[in-house]
Amino acid sequence: MARRRVGLWLLGARGGVATTAIVGWAAMKKKLTPPVGLVSELPQFSNLDFFNWGDLTIGGHDIRKTTLIEEAEKLRDQSRAIDGGLIRSVRTELRKIDERIRPGVLFNVGSTIRSFATKSLQKKEESPRQSIRRVQRDLRAFVKNERLDQVIVLNVASTEPQVKGSIPAKWDDFESLLEDGGSCPLPASSLYAIASLELGMPFVNFTPSLGSAPAAIDELARRNNTCHMGHDGKTGETLLKSALAPIFANRHLNIMSWVGHNIFGNMDGKVLDDPRNKKTKVVSKDRLLGEILGYDPQTHISIEYIESLGDWKTAWDHVHFQGFLGTPMALQFTWQGCDSILAAPLVLDLVRFTDLARRRGETGLLTFLASFFKSPLGTTQNNFVKQFQMLEDWAAATGD
Amino acid sequence: MARRRVGLWLLGARGGVATTAIVGWAAMKKKLTPPVGLVSELPQFSNLDFFNWGDLTIGGHDIRKTTLIEEAEKLRDQSRAIDGGLIRSVRTELRKIDERIRPGVLFNVGSTIRSFATKSLQKKEESPRQSIRRVQRDLRAFVKNERLDQVIVLNVASTEPQVKGSIPAKWDDFESLLEDGGSCPLPASSLYAIASLELGMPFVNFTPSLGSAPAAIDELARRNNTCHMGHDGKTGETLLKSALAPIFANRHLNIMSWVGHNIFGNMDGKVLDDPRNKKTKVVSKDRLLGEILGYDPQTHISIEYIESLGDWKTAWDHVHFQGFLGTPMALQFTWQGCDSILAAPLVLDLVRFTDLARRRGETGLLTFLASFFKSPLGTTQNNFVKQFQMLEDWAAATGD
Amino acid sequence: MARRRVGLWLLGARGGVATTAIVGWAAMKKKLTPPVGLVSELPQFSNLDFFNWGDLTIGGHDIRKTTLIEEAEKLRDQSRAIDGGLIRSVRTELRKIDERIRPGVLFNVGSTIRSFATKSLQKKEESPRQSIRRVQRDLRAFVKNERLDQVIVLNVASTEPQVKGSIPAKWDDFESLLEDGGSCPLPASSLYAIASLELGMPFVNFTPSLGSAPAAIDELARRNNTCHMGHDGKTGETLLKSALAPIFANRHLNIMSWVGHNIFGNMDGKVLDDPRNKKTKVVSKDRLLGEILGYDPQTHISIEYIESLGDWKTAWDHVHFQGFLGTPMALQFTWQGCDSILAAPLVLDLVRFTDLARRRGETGLLTFLASFFKSPLGTTQNNFVKQFQMLEDWAAATGD
Amino acid sequence: MARRRVGLWLLGARGGVATTAIVGWAAMKKKLTPPVGLVSELPQFSNLDFFNWGDLTIGGHDIRKTTLIEEAEKLRDQSRAIDGGLIRSVRTELRKIDERIRPGVLFNVGSTIRSFATKSLQKKEESPRQSIRRVQRDLRAFVKNERLDQVIVLNVASTEPQVKGSIPAKWDDFESLLEDGGSCPLPASSLYAIASLELGMPFVNFTPSLGSAPAAIDELARRNNTCHMGHDGKTGETLLKSALAPIFANRHLNIMSWVGHNIFGNMDGKVLDDPRNKKTKVVSKDRLLGEILGYDPQTHISIEYIESLGDWKTAWDHVHFQGFLGTPMALQFTWQGCDSILAAPLVLDLVRFTDLARRRGETGLLTFLASFFKSPLGTTQNNFVKQFQMLEDWAAATGD
Repeated sequence: MARRRVGLWLLGARGGVATTAIVGWAAMKKKLTPPVGLVSELPQFSNLDFFNWGDLTIGGHDIRKTTLIEEAEKLRDQSRAIDGGLIRSVRTELRKIDERIRPGVLFNVGSTIRSFATKSLQKKEESPRQSIRRVQRDLRAFVKNERLDQVIVLNVASTEPQVKGSIPAKWDDFESLLEDGGSCPLPASSLYAIASLELGMPFVNFTPSLGSAPAAIDELARRNNTCHMGHDGKTGETLLKSALAPIFANRHLNIMSWVGHNIFGNMDGKVLDDPRNKKTKVVSKDRLLGEILGYDPQTHISIEYIESLGDWKTAWDHVHFQGFLGTPMALQFTWQGCDSILAAPLVLDLVRFTDLARRRGETGLLTFLASFFKSPLGTTQNNFVKQFQMLEDWAAATGD
Repeated sequence: MARRRVGLWLLGARGGVATTAIVGWAAMKKKLTPPVGLVSELPQFSNLDFFNWGDLTIGGHDIRKTTLIEEAEKLRDQSRAIDGGLIRSVRTELRKIDERIRPGVLFNVGSTIRSFATKSLQKKEESPRQSIRRVQRDLRAFVKNERLDQVIVLNVASTEPQVKGSIPAKWDDFESLLEDGGSCPLPASSLYAIASLELGMPFVNFTPSLGSAPAAIDELARRNNTCHMGHDGKTGETLLKSALAPIFANRHLNIMSWVGHNIFGNMDGKVLDDPRNKKTKVVSKDRLLGEILGYDPQTHISIEYIESLGDWKTAWDHVHFQGFLGTPMALQFTWQGCDSILAAPLVLDLVRFTDLARRRGETGLLTFLASFFKSPLGTTQNNFVKQFQMLEDWAAATGD
Repeated sequence: MARRRVGLWLLGARGGVATTAIVGWAAMKKKLTPPVGLVSELPQFSNLDFFNWGDLTIGGHDIRKTTLIEEAEKLRDQSRAIDGGLIRSVRTELRKIDERIRPGVLFNVGSTIRSFATKSLQKKEESPRQSIRRVQRDLRAFVKNERLDQVIVLNVASTEPQVKGSIPAKWDDFESLLEDGGSCPLPASSLYAIASLELGMPFVNFTPSLGSAPAAIDELARRNNTCHMGHDGKTGETLLKSALAPIFANRHLNIMSWVGHNIFGNMDGKVLDDPRNKKTKVVSKDRLLGEILGYDPQTHISIEYIESLGDWKTAWDHVHFQGFLGTPMALQFTWQGCDSILAAPLVLDLVRFTDLARRRGETGLLTFLASFFKSPLGTTQNNFVKQFQMLEDWAAATGD
Repeated sequence: MARRRVGLWLLGARGGVATTAIVGWAAMKKKLTPPVGLVSELPQFSNLDFFNWGDLTIGGHDIRKTTLIEEAEKLRDQSRAIDGGLIRSVRTELRKIDERIRPGVLFNVGSTIRSFATKSLQKKEESPRQSIRRVQRDLRAFVKNERLDQVIVLNVASTEPQVKGSIPAKWDDFESLLEDGGSCPLPASSLYAIASLELGMPFVNFTPSLGSAPAAIDELARRNNTCHMGHDGKTGETLLKSALAPIFANRHLNIMSWVGHNIFGNMDGKVLDDPRNKKTKVVSKDRLLGEILGYDPQTHISIEYIESLGDWKTAWDHVHFQGFLGTPMALQFTWQGCDSILAAPLVLDLVRFTDLARRRGETGLLTFLASFFKSPLGTTQNNFVKQFQMLEDWAAATGD
């Protein structure tokens, strides 16, 4: 029997997360690195029929003029995040994928992201529908050129500004919006989502951008018998919050304030330095506390671009809580994580789990993937251990 | 219908945890403080038929010559842990309970604990069986004088040294041991356990001392149709570990080392400054990581007596882990918790849950209480959220 | 010989710092508390002829309707900063001083500070010169009523917004400005400075507000043969910076970024939550790094109002530096200091040192006091140890 | 005029500090890395007539069978401390120096250090005097082969156990000790010191081992008109202490306890895991607090070997202090420094300053170098800024 060929189409394909995922995928294919950091490689998922790394082909969209090798070397030199020897041994793979990366979409991405784009992209004039058609042409060519059985589209592009204006709840009211750039509130991430779901390709949003979150886009996914999930990969501070907050809830300790300061210096940080883009992120990070605790303590979340840190996202959290007899106490933590290194394996995991769900005929939101996201769509479960139980339960029901 | 009268018999009744539990209980009875920190007051347990604070009577054993008021004022002055006004408003209650506190047992508690005891206790010569009988006389008098329907014995005395020598697995082989002080390896905590379980009274061990852990004592509990549980209340650093370790396990991040430094200055700290007593504690704190992770990273746990900290147990943990592509990352946390304040409400919770289990006729180990303990007996479940689920499931099956 | 009677006139006399200084002064007078935290009580200053606490009389201005007892109890209840017993034992003193506190000046203090003022102050209409005259009437009455030999005016009022517009460099050009509220850019702190210096009374600015910083006001001080100093008391994070930055400078380690996050919940915090007032403070905190290092690394300073912290100013600093062979390293610190407790003794010290300098006939800026201030006027010396050497050298030259 | 040729003879020449110093020296000679981290390259020392890197020749002793390239690659792979490209570009230099490294001395170094030595060294039987003569033969050959004008001997070997037994105060009483291995309490570091000082070569002890600390060895240095200094390079936690403690002293804040936990995983860490060797280090680290503060607070210093950290020495310090009105406050810091990277440039600095002092004819202890050491010999000045002032003052008096 011929092996299935799966395609991963990355939006933001030359960004830090995508570059690290690509280097890591190539290294694992060659058995140069162990699968540390991959959820799909845990023993409890060993009975699942995942594709092998050798059966995956990668392409994508990006808006910048750079190369995967250049970006990988930046992660080596500025952040000591990726080993130089590893990069050298996968250069050929990086070059091959670079050739498959196509110019992306700049619609409603805000002036900061736009400023990073190539001149020719900045000049391009398209209606939203025209952008969608262009993306679909790229996706179809990917399928055809690489003879793929399945493509999963996954967004790791920079965070877009918050969407203003109301978004129709029904797909039928969307169509007209897409014809006119002037009145369409949707950002690029949603256009990509529409493009892929219309083709029946699953869409996964690893960023806090809007993507497939609108109900009408979920409707589109179901109409096309395909699936999607988001949003905002949970890799660091919020991951800790979703594990620590249940302690306070279950011990009946009253959280008076939870302050979180995040500093980092990668491209993501540069984009989030724009207050409009930052707002999208902060809303996503701040949601879960109230949902776990059942009340809203004072919170403060800051995200600051500190160039010297490169890809190292350092977070300091100060949790001030009241115990028995009103006594105030404190928990502080410092998280020093390499952003791309934490995110990249989850990207590869999500492709595997989504591919499997697609083969099983699941449609609409894949809520069993909640543990991967800061703001999982379709569920209010934010307790990490319980989210992970959802994944294990799905696997138990799915495996054979 | 007459109200049930429940008795709480505290071992170490004038220690920091007991004193705080007593002050808090009296304050709640008078509605002077809200039930923050009490698990039994969470909404998910509101359908359980717990006794009211007004129906609880407290007595206990202690080995030191001091008073509850003195100890409460020490917590106010040395640690700013309890409000002075609150202490003043419950002075009468403290004095009443002080009168019910009886001289404790010093058998095999080690020279450090022994040095804190009253002269007359230090001179007393009893065989283990004689000590048990003395304790039982005190317990029977408590029941009679206070006209109690139920007594729960709960150990919050200082940590004893690790037990040397083998302990028989069958209760029938115990009896002879108890006659001869010279050959009996059991410490005071186990004698108290035997004393209470022989009378059918539930025994709860909030410390890392041996208590009712031996299989033979569990057999004794079942023979007497009563229940017990332990050990070592989970209040701070270990609580965090049991919530944080699952993150690393579920994200397939490889923990290379986990270092935990604990400093504090209360009586518990003074006792743990003796390496023999400290060993008991460290073993209890160090057990869960391997059980959650499935492998044993390098660990180092230190516990140091720093007088100026008083009751404030400050822990610094450094978790060094390896992610994708072998990149090393770190999580650090600092926990600044007031030991007695964190422990006291759990003591009151345990009395309520245990009383209910006893009324329902449960015998042997109450494993559904695992979330309260660092080293829960009878289960290897150390994931805090899953332990708490056990409590919620029990409540759902029990409530009406 | 009759003893000299010294007066301390506090601006912001019912704020946290003033209240703590007053409670502490009264307690020291009664020998109820040791002089911990007082620089003037160090052995190296024992030869200086300071006044005794019994010879000090305190009065001041404030804009709020509250009492010293109320404010002291707030520090006890919300922050566990001052012991309740201590407050009780100095109630009489607090009441006496309360009677001497007069309504303050609201000119150019910004809407946030204005909102805390009494209704009658908010309605008052005065030209700057009229405010100055009113303040001088209060100061003269203080001297007369209390038969004082010397008064020192010290500002511990809330931080004013940054001053806009240019300020004349010569005193003669000032006079006309003071007649017309519409065109006068000076804030209340400068009006107080003018009021006191015109009367020959030394003025000390413990806040980052403008105060006596303008050159023209220094000229006024010299004309009146009196002295002044500022600004912004150095009590916590900046104190640490001024001790730590020299390490990096002297070891030739290249600071790439220095991030400082400050959270606290007192009245000062509430005022600094207004971005216009915060700006004044951040500028003051951010100045010294460049002066010590000789270059300007990327810095980020945040100040956030977190109500639950009360008077506890908690700062987290992350210093990212590059060492030999370009290797990046990090220092983090967390400072948990009680703001008023740290500032109050320095206020009392400054009165003592300033009184002595005044008696010695010093005029203009008292630069030897640099170690007390975040942004010392008249010097670029920000290395704390060297600043302190200046104080010791002055004392050696002054004492007998 | 022919250029002076200076030799650096390293004890522990293949250890982490030596290897990093050698890689860095070679890289600076080739202008491949900027002189970050070198004190001698600060502007205030630009008038001093230091030798150039091209005029330095390096050799040394070591006890292990390894190579500089291997050790450098370990620092690259296990600690990400040195860049791989840099190592490649200085391979030739490393090989050349490797050939000059001679077998070291194992006398009284303790069993842990001995276990790392080559078999042939372990078997060698020499009296102390024989070892000294062997070392002197190696030093003379170094001078001759490399045609050197001056050699400086610098100890960066592993920390030896504390010396037991009394050491004679006069050099004349030493001679006999050296003849008999059985009764000689001196460790290898002191034998090296004697060997070099007898030849008139300056000796610098960068470790806490005994080295030239005994008064009799100082006498020997003076007799031979040469100089020496030590001990224990101040690179991390203690450096911070010597800058932070003056704050508390000068602000009259009462330090109640200072706890320092150090974790790291390099060879130094492995040796210090032996309690006898650790003792030497802890004593050296713990001395300065009392000298700066004028009283001895409770202190606790731990040093633990945590393998995964490699060369990254991570220290957590908790400073508990009492301020005005008895209020307790806290400062915590975390230092994440790469040990060899911090120490290596100081080693090169010390060679430059010592060479200059030697040329100026200084004899005995070079106390002006105090700022480089945890426990500077010949001075009780432990305030870092004041120590650095001593260096600047010396430079001002020396430069032309």
